[in-house]
Amino acid sequence: MSDAKADIGVLGMGTMGAMLALNIAEEDFETAIFNRTTEKAFKVRDDNPELAAKLHPENSLEEFVAALKTPRVVLIMVNAGKPVDEQIEHLKPLLEKGDIVIDGGNADFNDTVRRNKAMEGTGIHFVGMGVSGGELGARHGPSIMVGGDKAVWERLKPILQPVAAQYDGSPCVAWLGTDGAGHFVKTIHNGIEYADMQMIAEIYGIMRDGLGMAAPDMAKVFADWNTRGLASYLVEITAAVLAETDQETGKPLVDLIVDEAGQKGTGRWSVIEAQKLGIGATTLESAVSARGISSRRAERADAAKVYADLTLPASTFASGTEGLRELEEALETAKIIAYAQGYAIMAAASQEFTWNLPLGDIARIWRAGCIIRSDFLDDIAKAYETGETVINLLQTPTFSGRVAKGQAALRQVVSKATLAGVPVPALGAALFYFDDYRRARGTANLVQGQRDLFGAHTFTRFDKDGVQHHHWPAV
Amino acid sequence: MSDAKADIGVLGMGTMGAMLALNIAEEDFETAIFNRTTEKAFKVRDDNPELAAKLHPENSLEEFVAALKTPRVVLIMVNAGKPVDEQIEHLKPLLEKGDIVIDGGNADFNDTVRRNKAMEGTGIHFVGMGVSGGELGARHGPSIMVGGDKAVWERLKPILQPVAAQYDGSPCVAWLGTDGAGHFVKTIHNGIEYADMQMIAEIYGIMRDGLGMAAPDMAKVFADWNTRGLASYLVEITAAVLAETDQETGKPLVDLIVDEAGQKGTGRWSVIEAQKLGIGATTLESAVSARGISSRRAERADAAKVYADLTLPASTFASGTEGLRELEEALETAKIIAYAQGYAIMAAASQEFTWNLPLGDIARIWRAGCIIRSDFLDDIAKAYETGETVINLLQTPTFSGRVAKGQAALRQVVSKATLAGVPVPALGAALFYFDDYRRARGTANLVQGQRDLFGAHTFTRFDKDGVQHHHWPAV
Repeated sequence: MSDAKADIGVLGMGTMGAMLALNIAEEDFETAIFNRTTEKAFKVRDDNPELAAKLHPENSLEEFVAALKTPRVVLIMVNAGKPVDEQIEHLKPLLEKGDIVIDGGNADFNDTVRRNKAMEGTGIHFVGMGVSGGELGARHGPSIMVGGDKAVWERLKPILQPVAAQYDGSPCVAWLGTDGAGHFVKTIHNGIEYADMQMIAEIYGIMRDGLGMAAPDMAKVFADWNTRGLASYLVEITAAVLAETDQETGKPLVDLIVDEAGQKGTGRWSVIEAQKLGIGATTLESAVSARGISSRRAERADAAKVYADLTLPASTFASGTEGLRELEEALETAKIIAYAQGYAIMAAASQEFTWNLPLGDIARIWRAGCIIRSDFLDDIAKAYETGETVINLLQTPTFSGRVAKGQAALRQVVSKATLAGVPVPALGAALFYFDDYRRARGTANLVQGQRDLFGAHTFTRFDKDGVQHHHWPAV
Repeated sequence: MSDAKADIGVLGMGTMGAMLALNIAEEDFETAIFNRTTEKAFKVRDDNPELAAKLHPENSLEEFVAALKTPRVVLIMVNAGKPVDEQIEHLKPLLEKGDIVIDGGNADFNDTVRRNKAMEGTGIHFVGMGVSGGELGARHGPSIMVGGDKAVWERLKPILQPVAAQYDGSPCVAWLGTDGAGHFVKTIHNGIEYADMQMIAEIYGIMRDGLGMAAPDMAKVFADWNTRGLASYLVEITAAVLAETDQETGKPLVDLIVDEAGQKGTGRWSVIEAQKLGIGATTLESAVSARGISSRRAERADAAKVYADLTLPASTFASGTEGLRELEEALETAKIIAYAQGYAIMAAASQEFTWNLPLGDIARIWRAGCIIRSDFLDDIAKAYETGETVINLLQTPTFSGRVAKGQAALRQVVSKATLAGVPVPALGAALFYFDDYRRARGTANLVQGQRDLFGAHTFTRFDKDGVQHHHWPAV
């Protein structure tokens, strides 16, 4: 471009970068685009003639930066990690005070905090932005989680609000806090996504191995569930995946897919951060672990041979309306607990990093655009709207009644699966977390006694003030 | 000291440092000791007249280093983290090529790898050494896990072998690999310790809340269990803790201890490293998470009020011989699975960091001196002695028969606890891991279908070669 200056520049024309650029152009912003392999940016423009007038591919990083209105907005969309640091280094000498650099990739929030710090004093603003919704979300409206200086947010809002997904006319984008807040929340979003998907997979396992159902029949059940409390993108696509027939073999496609799940790292990060914060996030953990176990398929096949002769009690799952209703209620209840764990991580992080995360807003911007989108998130948003402090979602009137009722079904399902040998690590983790969490008197007193005996770690007593150390008999 | 030169110097006279110094002196090594607050070292000597001739407190770091035979051996016993780096910096200018610096604290193995690298080229050897067994272990014989240059090990062996715990005449110390191997293995030891303690606490919870047993009666049961398969230090001290009566109130002491468990970080590290390695270590994770939940006691009390009206099925646990036998077998089986997870983490780390960890030796040096010491570890050592490659302990003839038999009891216990509302996160995690692990066909095919639908993440098929991407219907 020569005279007109671009409103924003997107650096990196991988799938996510290209889709976001198209989305931004479609919202009528002049969009400079650049890619190290420069032809890629020109191809994005040429492949999209209807948006070509708004897309401005550039031949060099210098020209790309020169094409931007000042103060400039550069959105980096390259692979997380080192490539981001490299792009920042290349950009820095070309930018001026007041310019904004956004990392829109799936960054580890610790890196975002570090990059933010490194930018201090340069006058250039660094924004860590979580973008959820995959390729389609990026193209037509993702959920966007922004972290950085609040003042910068006011400048980004006019571009990001129309680009984001809309839920009932409300844009799914918000400023969540300083430095790494946006990427942290994106990480927890992905952890919750893992848990949600794992719990659905466990119910699928019960249907397949406990009830002997065929995939097309399961598809109908999930489609039905999608009309009520469980209504969500993930349940909707579960129905779609289960309904799909392989054209070549005529078999359900899902039965032909190898049971080895990949993962990209953000699920792990959510677990690692939960651990660092001392928060029990067992549904997320068991989901990430389950993917790890799935990936060792040859090893599992060997183990199956070793334990081929195992006799298990007959499955007591019922396939009728009542049985399926029990599964539905169990999944719904476990889902509430998993989200409560995810929110507990964010609440702890909010304190630890003094972000003051707007937890209600986070639910609101997840209602559309992202993978875990659902009306259920609207309930979470409402739980934060009452004005009362939310200690944990399980303690809110919005959810406590549902959980009190639904836990009976979850209990039945976990118990039956346990006996039948169908693994339910995430559903079980949800129930055991609930049972541990609602217990005024736990069992850590024994642990404290043991620790004091072997390591003089001390303990406190109910009936006395102060730290105690007991002179235990020699063992 | 003036003429005689010390065989080793211990830097840091905190509890662990002092106890190790006494232990070393008792084994007839001339031991220089030093502490920043210098009187502390003199006090250690003066408080232990029977060992005073072997203990040589020094007035400055310079004199401490000068007191050592060359090439020198310095054992740093200060708090993990920054203090270790500071001591290394202070020592470096005083040391020469060929000297050995050992960090005997509870270091994060990532720090040990970093320190090892930083020492490269100086000619000074850095050793990361995990020491387990608490205060008493350090004094009378700990389990010692050594990481560093193998050549250095030959020089340390004569000192460390008599200092270590002895199991049937065999010293509980071994060189495990280069740089961070020793501290990594210590971290996993602690993660296993967390899981072991949590599973015992869950059985205690069942006895207390499911069976209504009193602590002294439970003590007798654990003491009985300690005579058979579960025989171990942790079960022994469980009996001791449960048997203890508070002299003032006449009540069982355990009933007066507040149920809020502390933790020092190594448990978390084990979970974090397992996650980084993609290993499902759900029993360790649930144990660490349970401590986190326990520490939020006020929050739990509030939650208990919210869910006060919950109606649960009546407990179906039986307190007779058969019922207790079921609990014993369940605990024994879950313990095998937890250790299998811990060993799977080490096997993966051994590959990742090219340590070639001697897994059998690790079991051998854990048989005595450390918190998880037990005869059961001798069985693990034997599983590695057969000469056959151990993919996972659950697949070894040593354990597969026991697990195949014991899983029925574990299944019953988890199922009953689930219904009765007694949380069993670690016992459950163990069983679900087993059920997932022994399943040739898991449920990750559904997850792969979902991931391909929303993110074009691709999948593989049983009936076709190559990576597939399906054109799913629009959702």
